[in-house]
Amino acid sequence: MILDGIGMLFGIPFSLYYEDNDVSTLLETGLSIAAIGGLIFASLKNYKKDIRKRESYLIVGSGWIAMSAFGALPFVIHGSIPSYTDAFFETISGFTTTGASILNDIESLPHGLLFWRSFTQWLGGMGIIVLSLAILPILGIGGMQLFVAEVPGPTKDKIHPRIRETAKRLWGIYLLLTLAETALLITGGMNLFDALTHSFTTMATGGFSTKQASIAAWDSPFIHYVIIFFMFVAGMNFSLHYYWLRGAWKKLTGNDEFKFYLFFVLGVSIVIAVDLFLHGYGNVEKSFRDSLFQTVSIVTTTGYVTSDYETWGAFYQIVFFILLFAGGCAGSTGGAIKMVRHQLLIKNSLNELKRLLHPRAVIPVRFNKKIVSNEVLANIMAFSFWYIAIFLAGMLILSLLGMDFISAIGAAATTLGNVGPGIGTVGPSLNFANVPTAGKWILSFLMLVGRLELFTILVIFSKSFWKK
Amino acid sequence: MILDGIGMLFGIPFSLYYEDNDVSTLLETGLSIAAIGGLIFASLKNYKKDIRKRESYLIVGSGWIAMSAFGALPFVIHGSIPSYTDAFFETISGFTTTGASILNDIESLPHGLLFWRSFTQWLGGMGIIVLSLAILPILGIGGMQLFVAEVPGPTKDKIHPRIRETAKRLWGIYLLLTLAETALLITGGMNLFDALTHSFTTMATGGFSTKQASIAAWDSPFIHYVIIFFMFVAGMNFSLHYYWLRGAWKKLTGNDEFKFYLFFVLGVSIVIAVDLFLHGYGNVEKSFRDSLFQTVSIVTTTGYVTSDYETWGAFYQIVFFILLFAGGCAGSTGGAIKMVRHQLLIKNSLNELKRLLHPRAVIPVRFNKKIVSNEVLANIMAFSFWYIAIFLAGMLILSLLGMDFISAIGAAATTLGNVGPGIGTVGPSLNFANVPTAGKWILSFLMLVGRLELFTILVIFSKSFWKK
Repeated sequence: MILDGIGMLFGIPFSLYYEDNDVSTLLETGLSIAAIGGLIFASLKNYKKDIRKRESYLIVGSGWIAMSAFGALPFVIHGSIPSYTDAFFETISGFTTTGASILNDIESLPHGLLFWRSFTQWLGGMGIIVLSLAILPILGIGGMQLFVAEVPGPTKDKIHPRIRETAKRLWGIYLLLTLAETALLITGGMNLFDALTHSFTTMATGGFSTKQASIAAWDSPFIHYVIIFFMFVAGMNFSLHYYWLRGAWKKLTGNDEFKFYLFFVLGVSIVIAVDLFLHGYGNVEKSFRDSLFQTVSIVTTTGYVTSDYETWGAFYQIVFFILLFAGGCAGSTGGAIKMVRHQLLIKNSLNELKRLLHPRAVIPVRFNKKIVSNEVLANIMAFSFWYIAIFLAGMLILSLLGMDFISAIGAAATTLGNVGPGIGTVGPSLNFANVPTAGKWILSFLMLVGRLELFTILVIFSKSFWKK
Repeated sequence: MILDGIGMLFGIPFSLYYEDNDVSTLLETGLSIAAIGGLIFASLKNYKKDIRKRESYLIVGSGWIAMSAFGALPFVIHGSIPSYTDAFFETISGFTTTGASILNDIESLPHGLLFWRSFTQWLGGMGIIVLSLAILPILGIGGMQLFVAEVPGPTKDKIHPRIRETAKRLWGIYLLLTLAETALLITGGMNLFDALTHSFTTMATGGFSTKQASIAAWDSPFIHYVIIFFMFVAGMNFSLHYYWLRGAWKKLTGNDEFKFYLFFVLGVSIVIAVDLFLHGYGNVEKSFRDSLFQTVSIVTTTGYVTSDYETWGAFYQIVFFILLFAGGCAGSTGGAIKMVRHQLLIKNSLNELKRLLHPRAVIPVRFNKKIVSNEVLANIMAFSFWYIAIFLAGMLILSLLGMDFISAIGAAATTLGNVGPGIGTVGPSLNFANVPTAGKWILSFLMLVGRLELFTILVIFSKSFWKK
């Protein structure tokens, strides 16, 4: 709440500059929320009980919900999003870095609120980096076990300094990359406000824009390529950024997931670009740029739009529907299933063909030259199963609420994957305004579950969690 | 080819009785194919090379293709299906026990050809039982490893008597159940021809009917319940039939997959029945019967129709789309993913939640009270991955050929799962006549891959298969 309240204040200078009418709303709401948060914090100061595994699941889950519940208030109080359901949807879409929006006229919002809307994504991205690289590995979630040689138990002495140290370094990189993008976007002709807010939502792979037309509002190849580059970077494992920023490129070329990610994105983009060009979409550069932009945008789960892929033909509705499940690398700000899991599923599936022909041979799955344990494979199998099960359940409920097949399938996939645009009535040039109220709460839940790598939320619903 | 040729002759008595014009076609084509087959067989008699693993994959795959390639000839020669593509599609849909049809007016076909069309499914079902219960376990495919305590290596001495012995017993049961259903359907008012052909296609979970309206052509609750019972029985593991036919019911109640299958089918049917009844679909019995019929029909991958579920509302389009992936039990004539795999995926996914909370505890997945090995889990993981990958690839190609999203997704799912009807333009009251020619070949391939438990075909495409 303290973070929420203070965060709301940062947009005020822009509102003052642009003479908007949301200054008092942001000031009063922000200070009130921060003050209440401060009082609660002070009253809990003497509460010294150890935080154990179970509590940490509850803290992470309820933290994201509380941030969104309070973060939605300025929109309602100001009146620019009168319905609390809509405001909550928009805000949890921010904090989960999804980017799905219910707004029909984004430009009508005052700058302070627009700043706050983008800032929720930046904060969410910040949270997710630390969660996925420092906290979840300790809980055994998120596929990052693969990168951690020794996962320490949750002892009181070790966690705190470790998380704090890791968090500081990661946030340094995150801030640095955000400022670098801002500078480049200003160079490309954006004003400070747009450059800053779009850098927030790029680095978070969030995808909220300050324009209804999203990035298509800027007809500048330079701006498009800058955003493509930073979306791609945001979809990388942030622990890799340490190395290449210091010139240790070998760490990149030796990383199986990074190579898979790079070749996947390039491969898909080139195939689409050739097809678009052959069908007379535009010149070579334009075909390649739009294809690369939309592929990187959807694969990294950012969700920016420069061209509506649904207008490229019925085939692309299916292609981009499938890409909604891709996701960037583990330890990035991206959502969905993520590269490393796809890669291990593919490796295991190819190995199985060898195993059938040579039943006595031991053919393990390897990743970064190390053997992947059966425990990790069982975890990935469970993750994929839950992912599909939750997706199907979400889609079923949405269709019960009256959504058509394609929109239901698209809305469930894009929110669970934290992407943003889907297909059908929630496609890239449309939005979530017309989803029924109950559907908006279901989709909010899907965003949360997807963002927190499923298990963080699912364990809370398991029987063993509540056993003594 | 010998089997194919002789099989074509069995329908001739019906054609003579009904004075149809296909007697000479069936006689000449059947005898020619059988004769050519006989000549090839005689010339190969002195070929004594051992059949090894690799050869057995090729034999199974090419066997199914050859049966369909020759089996399609009578339709083309008679002229009732002029296009060879269509005839091949219809015949491989038969031998794979799928039941997807390109016929717009089934009743216009002469009885001999209709008999042959149903008989292809019965033969396919016969083949699949032996394949899944006697041959694939030796190759390590199909999930039946779970039921076989010791899988013997493919040594020359052991395979032959073992397969022959198992096959004889299974075919005895298959024949017995087919005759029992025929007798009951005649009791219910069907004529001998319809009773026999529908028993063929029920026991094979095939779904070809001699009527364009499928089972809806008979407005008899008795007939519907008889078919429901035998579809359910055909979806059970055939090795279980040994036991309950002899009164050993404990073998049923102690079988985890059977219990899961039973409760799944009943659970889904009751929920749908209540919903149909509440929406004024009909009286309690009619709602329950149609719901049970369609659920059993799709879950067992039979594909008969008494009521078009697409007219029940958009929600049911999604429900039945999902059910296309269910499948009956391993060792049945059903296709798709099958109960045991779903069950183990669910068990592993629930276990993973426990493992996260108790990382030091060893929590194995159990099935029929035995611990499931990591090898079996890796196999199921690979199977599910390939299943989804092939489904998505099929759907992508179909949409490239011009099919719309819903029809493409439905056609790929229903052929890979060997079900029959899909959703959209290939829904229960429509057919595959309007699928583009290239699409029919793609769908034929999907039927074959799905029928042979994926791996039988996939290994042939793997690098290691062709290595010395």
